[in-house]
Amino acid sequence: MNIEQNQIEKYNDSLSTSHQRKLNFLKEEWSHVDLESIIQKLVDFQIAIPSWALGTGGTRFGRFAITGGEPRTIEEKIEDVGLLHALNGASGAISLHIPWDIPTNAEALKSLASSYGLTFDAMNSNTFQDQAGSAHSYKFGSLQNVNKAIRKQAIEHNIEVIKQGVALGSNALTVWLADGSCFPGQLNFRKAFENTLESLQEIYSALPEDWKMFVEYKAFEPNFYSTTVGDWGQSLLYASKLGKKAYTLVDLGHHLPNANIEQIVALLLMEGKLGGFHFNDSKYGDDDLTAGSIKPYQLFLIFNELVEGMDAKGMNHAKDLGWMIDASHNVKDPLEDLLQSVEAIMIAYTQALLVDRKALNAAQDNNDVASAQEILQNTFRSDLRALVAEARLRAGASLSPIGLYRELNVRQNLVKYRGLGTVATGL
Amino acid sequence: MNIEQNQIEKYNDSLSTSHQRKLNFLKEEWSHVDLESIIQKLVDFQIAIPSWALGTGGTRFGRFAITGGEPRTIEEKIEDVGLLHALNGASGAISLHIPWDIPTNAEALKSLASSYGLTFDAMNSNTFQDQAGSAHSYKFGSLQNVNKAIRKQAIEHNIEVIKQGVALGSNALTVWLADGSCFPGQLNFRKAFENTLESLQEIYSALPEDWKMFVEYKAFEPNFYSTTVGDWGQSLLYASKLGKKAYTLVDLGHHLPNANIEQIVALLLMEGKLGGFHFNDSKYGDDDLTAGSIKPYQLFLIFNELVEGMDAKGMNHAKDLGWMIDASHNVKDPLEDLLQSVEAIMIAYTQALLVDRKALNAAQDNNDVASAQEILQNTFRSDLRALVAEARLRAGASLSPIGLYRELNVRQNLVKYRGLGTVATGL
Amino acid sequence: MNIEQNQIEKYNDSLSTSHQRKLNFLKEEWSHVDLESIIQKLVDFQIAIPSWALGTGGTRFGRFAITGGEPRTIEEKIEDVGLLHALNGASGAISLHIPWDIPTNAEALKSLASSYGLTFDAMNSNTFQDQAGSAHSYKFGSLQNVNKAIRKQAIEHNIEVIKQGVALGSNALTVWLADGSCFPGQLNFRKAFENTLESLQEIYSALPEDWKMFVEYKAFEPNFYSTTVGDWGQSLLYASKLGKKAYTLVDLGHHLPNANIEQIVALLLMEGKLGGFHFNDSKYGDDDLTAGSIKPYQLFLIFNELVEGMDAKGMNHAKDLGWMIDASHNVKDPLEDLLQSVEAIMIAYTQALLVDRKALNAAQDNNDVASAQEILQNTFRSDLRALVAEARLRAGASLSPIGLYRELNVRQNLVKYRGLGTVATGL
Amino acid sequence: MNIEQNQIEKYNDSLSTSHQRKLNFLKEEWSHVDLESIIQKLVDFQIAIPSWALGTGGTRFGRFAITGGEPRTIEEKIEDVGLLHALNGASGAISLHIPWDIPTNAEALKSLASSYGLTFDAMNSNTFQDQAGSAHSYKFGSLQNVNKAIRKQAIEHNIEVIKQGVALGSNALTVWLADGSCFPGQLNFRKAFENTLESLQEIYSALPEDWKMFVEYKAFEPNFYSTTVGDWGQSLLYASKLGKKAYTLVDLGHHLPNANIEQIVALLLMEGKLGGFHFNDSKYGDDDLTAGSIKPYQLFLIFNELVEGMDAKGMNHAKDLGWMIDASHNVKDPLEDLLQSVEAIMIAYTQALLVDRKALNAAQDNNDVASAQEILQNTFRSDLRALVAEARLRAGASLSPIGLYRELNVRQNLVKYRGLGTVATGL
Repeated sequence: MNIEQNQIEKYNDSLSTSHQRKLNFLKEEWSHVDLESIIQKLVDFQIAIPSWALGTGGTRFGRFAITGGEPRTIEEKIEDVGLLHALNGASGAISLHIPWDIPTNAEALKSLASSYGLTFDAMNSNTFQDQAGSAHSYKFGSLQNVNKAIRKQAIEHNIEVIKQGVALGSNALTVWLADGSCFPGQLNFRKAFENTLESLQEIYSALPEDWKMFVEYKAFEPNFYSTTVGDWGQSLLYASKLGKKAYTLVDLGHHLPNANIEQIVALLLMEGKLGGFHFNDSKYGDDDLTAGSIKPYQLFLIFNELVEGMDAKGMNHAKDLGWMIDASHNVKDPLEDLLQSVEAIMIAYTQALLVDRKALNAAQDNNDVASAQEILQNTFRSDLRALVAEARLRAGASLSPIGLYRELNVRQNLVKYRGLGTVATGL
Repeated sequence: MNIEQNQIEKYNDSLSTSHQRKLNFLKEEWSHVDLESIIQKLVDFQIAIPSWALGTGGTRFGRFAITGGEPRTIEEKIEDVGLLHALNGASGAISLHIPWDIPTNAEALKSLASSYGLTFDAMNSNTFQDQAGSAHSYKFGSLQNVNKAIRKQAIEHNIEVIKQGVALGSNALTVWLADGSCFPGQLNFRKAFENTLESLQEIYSALPEDWKMFVEYKAFEPNFYSTTVGDWGQSLLYASKLGKKAYTLVDLGHHLPNANIEQIVALLLMEGKLGGFHFNDSKYGDDDLTAGSIKPYQLFLIFNELVEGMDAKGMNHAKDLGWMIDASHNVKDPLEDLLQSVEAIMIAYTQALLVDRKALNAAQDNNDVASAQEILQNTFRSDLRALVAEARLRAGASLSPIGLYRELNVRQNLVKYRGLGTVATGL
Repeated sequence: MNIEQNQIEKYNDSLSTSHQRKLNFLKEEWSHVDLESIIQKLVDFQIAIPSWALGTGGTRFGRFAITGGEPRTIEEKIEDVGLLHALNGASGAISLHIPWDIPTNAEALKSLASSYGLTFDAMNSNTFQDQAGSAHSYKFGSLQNVNKAIRKQAIEHNIEVIKQGVALGSNALTVWLADGSCFPGQLNFRKAFENTLESLQEIYSALPEDWKMFVEYKAFEPNFYSTTVGDWGQSLLYASKLGKKAYTLVDLGHHLPNANIEQIVALLLMEGKLGGFHFNDSKYGDDDLTAGSIKPYQLFLIFNELVEGMDAKGMNHAKDLGWMIDASHNVKDPLEDLLQSVEAIMIAYTQALLVDRKALNAAQDNNDVASAQEILQNTFRSDLRALVAEARLRAGASLSPIGLYRELNVRQNLVKYRGLGTVATGL
Repeated sequence: MNIEQNQIEKYNDSLSTSHQRKLNFLKEEWSHVDLESIIQKLVDFQIAIPSWALGTGGTRFGRFAITGGEPRTIEEKIEDVGLLHALNGASGAISLHIPWDIPTNAEALKSLASSYGLTFDAMNSNTFQDQAGSAHSYKFGSLQNVNKAIRKQAIEHNIEVIKQGVALGSNALTVWLADGSCFPGQLNFRKAFENTLESLQEIYSALPEDWKMFVEYKAFEPNFYSTTVGDWGQSLLYASKLGKKAYTLVDLGHHLPNANIEQIVALLLMEGKLGGFHFNDSKYGDDDLTAGSIKPYQLFLIFNELVEGMDAKGMNHAKDLGWMIDASHNVKDPLEDLLQSVEAIMIAYTQALLVDRKALNAAQDNNDVASAQEILQNTFRSDLRALVAEARLRAGASLSPIGLYRELNVRQNLVKYRGLGTVATGL
């Protein structure tokens, strides 16, 4: 299904008075700031939607009752992201996963995506699951495996994913390895590292000139004793040894308890090795909850480092890093959940853009800790949602994405078209 | 030093236009809500200041350069809290600690406190440190000690603290025990519990009829293997066995990583056994940072449970629980830090008051998780600071406490009067 | 397949000289202790095997290549536990799970189990997954659900499980609830508790007189914001309100990071409310690794409390608590993994039995912390495996269970009989 | 006081029969292994004692009753380490800390140390505390400080420490920085890193040719939001940028919860950047408990990686890394606590030396996870204490260090000589 432009406009009209009041209030409050350039940055900022997050998610205990109307094909997944993008104007890319998605006709897919204003973001390989018919199992790892034939299978899969991505116009490969061990003694850590590095080097050498490789790290799960790309330090080691096209990818849920993620982000940016983000939120582990649903202040602090660090390097906020959601929708309608995540990310980005850098630098130079806190909390406590809404308005999207989604009964329509029992591929 | 009412008024006048604009905007946005009653609740809500948090804090590695002008006596501590209360109108109580404070003339202290509009909140005993001249050391615990004479010394100290509190008009005793063990085998857990219970019972029997006893729990530190009142479950066990005057006290920094504190709060309220709070914030352990400086959303969620649970029981927000800050000011001016904590608490309380309970209940009854999240985040994302400021204005306090504090050079004046090298008793 | 007694004897003979040398050494070293009574306690001690742990496990990312020869039916699961029990003499019970197991002919199953020397341990209900054909989904909880009809379905399932258990001669019901929430606002914590309590009361009232109900707690997963029986304090609240047949069940992997589990165990024993154990080990969360594979000292410390606390209450080690393994075998042969878990548990129990209680009490009474540590570490550092082996020998089992398992090519035989592609029900 | 050789011999004679029985049993059990070379490695292995760990420790809540007889001077500290070394033959070095120790006459100190068979291990600088009379405070950091003059003061202090170390024959500088921040916004992470790097480079350039610089990391405390050398990844970044004399130092208590320290160790060894160790144990944070008192299996697993990795690089176990204890003795006699730590470390080292590497490699190559676990646990579960004791015997030390320490009433004698109220400098 499509959302028509006039449906959006009509809905926006109904909210217009309230929106303008809020926007005008902000314009008065922030009259010393060039809000127009802020709004333009918000218009430009796009967060990719992973193709596997469009269906109901589950845990190791299984999946509960599904939402209904889940996309059955890669085309329907593109349609879903198209719906999101029509609603929020900020989801203009889709990130595919091989083999949960099998693009058979790249040109047709590009054309379809383009009709929704979408591009293809980073490609994701999968060596954390066995595929029916595969010669080898990844039970004991893929790129790290002691068996060269298994490593070879995993390398070739990654190279195949690059090829698929080239055809679709993607320009990055995200390698998330579940490789690791469950028990002391299972692995020789050094050899596992060396095997993994060697395997990554082979994949790296297959990268087109303008591609990036994102090396994702994760502290634990599905291996529960060690992970072979377990933290940012290990990822940085690999990325540094691989070369200038290799970068570290940060997934917010992949850390040990209490980690200071914003500091990690700042240091990776400093080293020129931050590649991109997988947004989600968590309380315990890789909970894959809606971005900003548990620790919104942390999300803001991360964006605060991103804006500061990218500006210091003259980077383009919208283009020079990969922005993607990676969440699991166990108890919410996946599309609503994604709209909430994008909204939370946009709010955090806006708050970070409005931090008074000059005052903050001065406070830091004076060790005026109380003022530094006041400066950060001032933008965090401000209600900047009308700026995000205005950016959506200018992008032709909805002032209230979830509101319109419910108003138009999108889910019920999807169920009508696709059926109640469809299950999207993914987790 | 005192802050004169006309100084406050003059400063408020300078901020009046801006404040009114913000307040009017909120009145429009929340026209469906009785903001007047909200503001009255904010005026009534008071957060006690601990006498030991008025000086520069430190860690086990010592204390760095002090702020200067720290209070030298209990009278100067009362003066400091008076300053805070004059500035924010929400710090109308002081919580004393024996023997860091030794009240020698209760009537004079009551009169002094009263002149600042202050009352005496919960009294705090100390058996987590040895005092010069004590017969016994608490090295191996106080109320838990295997040595009856040491338990006796600790019991008598607590009873003495109650007496001091009675003279001052306090009506609660907070018992924080550092008791526990550093190594496996050091303690028999059961006997430690039984000794502690017996000791608490003796103290409890010395409580006046209208007093409460708060049993504080803490997961670790200064003992690093076990704590004898280690979590809410243990505290609740003691409080239940002690009787109806005994309650659990929650300090936000006293939990294991990732604990869901708001759920604990809800359950203790359900059981009628929540006694009060020590507010602070933390990232790693009992970091004793400014309230709301690390996890402001958690602070809001806690208040969300408090408001819901207290209303369900018909409790008086301002009077039926003990509200206190417990923080350590290692890198900020203590008075500024306390102003920031109180502000963060008031904001969280305001956000909780504005949650649309009816809509939230409906969402919960429909398992509409996305809406439930929207409802909570809507008030959290709203900028309600003008309501808190208005409450201050009505209480005769400052629209911007830290702003006025700096404008009046309060710290510099305190240094002038008290000297640069004074050190307040406490941690 | 069966393991014949003469196969065991022949294998034991080959190890006899070495075993006797070790045993004699221990007899000399511990000549001041009544080793015979220790060995008898080891012979008596039985650890139940869960029926769902006999197949290859997985994570939310799926299951890797299976081991082969997995049991296809409840009868084959009993056969597998029979094999374990023949090998180690300490796995004389099986714990069933409804509906992963559907006992259709209770008498035949009892007879089959009996032929292997097995009894039926605690019955496990399942409301953490939806079953095909169920009227209602547990997506938003079972016993806590806001919908009375869903609670009813879950209650009736539990009562049905009790009935099945009665027919099999079991005498306990383990209720593990996945109930909780994924997002702030999703649940009213108090109402969730009250609904859960009411539901448990209905189940409790269906318990036969000589049955126990075990209320298991878990900090997180599969819900990632709150769990409605989240910690020992909550479980104890339910169990206390339910009555004397209700107890808390401790699963070692169900805690927040750094929890002192041994203290929890000691306090639950003190309160007479410890019901039993699910043994496993973990580094991060509910990793369900082999018992003793990550923190063997913690396992010993837990048994140290168990032995001390049960002896203080005059409890029978073998009978008065429920002992069960609950692990997931993702990278090992499940039967080998279970043999390793049982071995680790038996070693920890033996070490705890040999702790010099009199000396430990004296050290505790003198606050001689260094000696207390020496006393505990002395038994932990001692190699007591020969005592465990001797208990096996006397029970007619193998001196080296894994050794014989491999010698007899048990797995290969199971594959031959059952096939390579069989998948046992469970996680 | 001194312990006379004949006192040791007499005591050893009394234990000889028992020791020989245990040793002979081990010789039989491990007849396939060259135990003589193992014992020689144990004789060679020395663990440095920090000068600040010879007195009673405390927490931020203060220090409880002291042990008595604490060393008052650097000479008495050397005497204490001499006592330890006489007792265990494995504490042949002392690690000084400036300015807790102020060596005024290097030659005399060297001569004194030499008389006890001691050398001077790594020198420790201190910029985590302010010193009376210093021009600048480190309240807002030392090497990271935004103020160049403060950085300069800290740099010069470190260079002074190097000079003192040169005079004493030390050859390493350990830099532990408490630098970091307590609140979001306080620091610009990038600038803090850059300032710290620049400062370290200045210190590095003052290092003698044969010296090493150890860059210690710590996740948190005394700063509770960020640490500027916060984890191994950051330390490795500094060490790599500094040059070949710079290494990472691992303190076991300086990690986030659940960190896999043994993997970190393996990777740092792989990179040639592991410099040394601070041994202690912990349950929650930097608890500074006795080595091996909480997680002895983890200690073994770390040594397992050390032995494997050092052997793979052809490194000398005793000389190529720095081994030191860093603990705090809050509830035990410091000397007894240190004896327990050294014993635990020697046991873990012995267990690691006896791991059947060939079999482990084979198991790893076959992904035989169960066997790999069996192999590691086999040495861990073996009682190898008699080998450690034999090494002590051959070194002229005591078969039972704590036993002799108590037999000779060492503490009582120290109290007699030094007095009851002496307090050693340190934490």
